[in-house]
Amino acid sequence: MITLKPEPLTKASFAPFGDVIEIEGAQHFPINQGFAERFNDLARVDVGEVNISIVTAKVRPKPIGLKLMERHPLGSQIFYPLQDRPWLVVVCVEPQDSKSFRVFRATGRQGINYARNTWHFPLLVLEDGSRFLVVDRKGPGNNLQEVKIDEIRLDVP
Amino acid sequence: MITLKPEPLTKASFAPFGDVIEIEGAQHFPINQGFAERFNDLARVDVGEVNISIVTAKVRPKPIGLKLMERHPLGSQIFYPLQDRPWLVVVCVEPQDSKSFRVFRATGRQGINYARNTWHFPLLVLEDGSRFLVVDRKGPGNNLQEVKIDEIRLDVP
Repeated sequence: MITLKPEPLTKASFAPFGDVIEIEGAQHFPINQGFAERFNDLARVDVGEVNISIVTAKVRPKPIGLKLMERHPLGSQIFYPLQDRPWLVVVCVEPQDSKSFRVFRATGRQGINYARNTWHFPLLVLEDGSRFLVVDRKGPGNNLQEVKIDEIRLDVP
Repeated sequence: MITLKPEPLTKASFAPFGDVIEIEGAQHFPINQGFAERFNDLARVDVGEVNISIVTAKVRPKPIGLKLMERHPLGSQIFYPLQDRPWLVVVCVEPQDSKSFRVFRATGRQGINYARNTWHFPLLVLEDGSRFLVVDRKGPGNNLQEVKIDEIRLDVP
């Protein structure tokens, strides 16, 4: 079993897996007669019909062991945190290659968009009742693939 | 000039104008091995290609006088608050008919989806720096119509 340590989440480090949704570094312009500023076009949304959801999540017991990964072959998936709470994002290139795993520490002002087919672990929050706005695909077809992996431990304080 | 008072925002009262996005009353089911709950399919997203944005908004000086309304003929538009702060939603059926105006007080856990062609006033926040996640349309064509109106005053404390 290997152990992974979270690294900060940046657009560049997350680029192979999808988009980071955040104000920092985004193009922006004034709207609403100058009373609002729009940080525009923050994610490549790759879905057919769109599903808007809210997800509330619980803390997993420690130590956190990753025993499966999942991906969505039919569309991208956005998670945006609603309470300004830091959270964790686990992705990999190939689930059977533990060296391909990355763990990111996202701030409470960073959402992510998993690109279609990006392997990821389910939501990992640091406080019970953490809420996220989710934008993903609606429609027929099996959009969830899960695979078991040799346990990987997360090194989180 | 007439004066309008905010009413609470509910799915039923907002139905003629679009969707309220909130956990309350939504269908939900467990996901992520029981560590998360998904409140699913919260808005009818009526856009072509999707644009994910963040908007930060400033308080307008009081008294707040409405002198214009706007609508988007090419797609729906979601605003979801990111800091659990109450905010205001102004809509109308016909901009030249002041009796058709409604003002809703949304909680910080209520987002809305303006249906295509719903007349609305731009973002009205109660604290500077209020942030929203926006889901609307991307693509060519003029998707903004604005119309001037006889001033309507908002009765907000």
